Amino acid sequence: MDSTFVVGIDVGGQTSKIGVVDARGTVLAQTVIRTDTYDKVEPYIAELAEAVNKLIKESGTEGKVRGIGVGAPNGNYYTGTIENAPNLLWGRERVEFSKLLSEAMGGLPVALTNDANAAAVGEMTYGAARGMKNFIMITLGTGVGSGIVINGEVVYGHDGFAGELGHTAAVRNNGRTCGCGKTGCLETYASATGVARTAREWLELTDEPSLLRGLDSIASKDVYEAAKEGDKLALKIFEFTGKILGRSFADFVAFSSPEAIVLFGGLARAKEFLTEPIENSLNENVLPLWKGKVKIVYSQLKESDAAILGASALAWEL
Amino acid sequence: MDSTFVVGIDVGGQTSKIGVVDARGTVLAQTVIRTDTYDKVEPYIAELAEAVNKLIKESGTEGKVRGIGVGAPNGNYYTGTIENAPNLLWGRERVEFSKLLSEAMGGLPVALTNDANAAAVGEMTYGAARGMKNFIMITLGTGVGSGIVINGEVVYGHDGFAGELGHTAAVRNNGRTCGCGKTGCLETYASATGVARTAREWLELTDEPSLLRGLDSIASKDVYEAAKEGDKLALKIFEFTGKILGRSFADFVAFSSPEAIVLFGGLARAKEFLTEPIENSLNENVLPLWKGKVKIVYSQLKESDAAILGASALAWEL
Repeated sequence: MDSTFVVGIDVGGQTSKIGVVDARGTVLAQTVIRTDTYDKVEPYIAELAEAVNKLIKESGTEGKVRGIGVGAPNGNYYTGTIENAPNLLWGRERVEFSKLLSEAMGGLPVALTNDANAAAVGEMTYGAARGMKNFIMITLGTGVGSGIVINGEVVYGHDGFAGELGHTAAVRNNGRTCGCGKTGCLETYASATGVARTAREWLELTDEPSLLRGLDSIASKDVYEAAKEGDKLALKIFEFTGKILGRSFADFVAFSSPEAIVLFGGLARAKEFLTEPIENSLNENVLPLWKGKVKIVYSQLKESDAAILGASALAWEL
Repeated sequence: MDSTFVVGIDVGGQTSKIGVVDARGTVLAQTVIRTDTYDKVEPYIAELAEAVNKLIKESGTEGKVRGIGVGAPNGNYYTGTIENAPNLLWGRERVEFSKLLSEAMGGLPVALTNDANAAAVGEMTYGAARGMKNFIMITLGTGVGSGIVINGEVVYGHDGFAGELGHTAAVRNNGRTCGCGKTGCLETYASATGVARTAREWLELTDEPSLLRGLDSIASKDVYEAAKEGDKLALKIFEFTGKILGRSFADFVAFSSPEAIVLFGGLARAKEFLTEPIENSLNENVLPLWKGKVKIVYSQLKESDAAILGASALAWEL
């Protein structure tokens, strides 16, 4: 039997994206189902399996699919379970995700991990980290996620939950409150929501004129648009964000001495405003031996395909 | 040929300790030579090789030694070199240590790493981390060193220099100046010298009565002795030190999710005063999923043997 395709599934809070992928990272076919219309996992899995089977049929890869890789919030590689996932209606209790999906797919093997780890595997398999054995993937989205690769392998840690760099301390005293219950977490500053928070905070604290003033609500996209028009406050917000990121990166470098830090996610689109402050702050805060040596690079995966590709890449290791 | 012994060498600034070790971690014979009487590496290596050969002969293990493991400041596992080691007179330039020693030993294989990584391997092979696949070794000595083990392997990183957790930011603003050129590094607070520094700082800033007042110079040992006699200031110093360590550990846990953090070194002797504040601070600063789950344990290697054992353990992997 010729088994040269994999399926990648990116489970998000609202939708789940499914794709059939070949060994070169081409998404042959893709589809989407709703995640948020189910509050029990069984009917969700049933619809998911149906959609996967249909997609395999449509793409002409029947009998040639080697396995399924899934990236999902709080997905645990070791146990194949999802638990305590606040954004998944059916994932607040412990769910035997891999087992259920594999059964529904007639025994096809399923590998599961969290979205940031999946992104790291995707980047290593098809993207900016090809050929790298040691790098750290940082996803700058609604939150800050991370996938750490050491010696060519994702770090899962003792319990499968390693790589929560968004919840390391960016600010130790009087830091912002984080959804996790702690304060000062990196993600309260350096995520898309963190950037919007900085904007709202600074607009209130200063009188500085800015295109952002008077907007009903501010998202990171608005800050980005304003920065592109040369808005000084918006530019300063990105500089501040880059500085926070760079000094946290310096601590990550002291841990695993990566060849590169790979940035991905909505906020990474603002690279023209982020790269320089990140690099400056990283090089200021790192031991002399690493100054100027750690690359800051950006995901090379097509954004619409990246989540599927990352998840699918897991399945090659099955 | 029956090859069931290894040699461990701990290269320190002043002396180099050498031991012949069996598979169970018994040091069969040991000796010491001076490190600091040489400013060139060649004559040092010549004396070292002579001492190793003599020790092998004396311990009756001729022809049965499998290899030599060396722990040395700035020792690089990948390249077998020592470079920029400020405390080694002959190690300020780049020195091909493993190659030179192996040649002087008639081709016997040599593995080199830094002292903290060697300590981690020692603890995993013979000590408190036996059976653990994921742990972090923290050495609390003159400085703070670290050896990180993930999936049963020491993390060397892209360039061989990973695991410099003593130089992560314990304090981000107005932190103490560190020998590395940065400020706020963990080792400026949580090493033996850091504890003495805290004592001197607090004695100056407050009028609080303390047994430490009036001492000519203060070392961490004095703080420990005072704490044992119930001195309130000394107890507060350990509480502060433990708090700083615990919150840094929380960030390390977010990185690699270790089963345990293993403490070693002179300052670790004060465990009766450190464990509780470390654990409290760790659990306060870690994500809910890790609360109460990460063990703080102490080295189980006999202190006089530990450095040799750690280095020797490297040689089993040759």
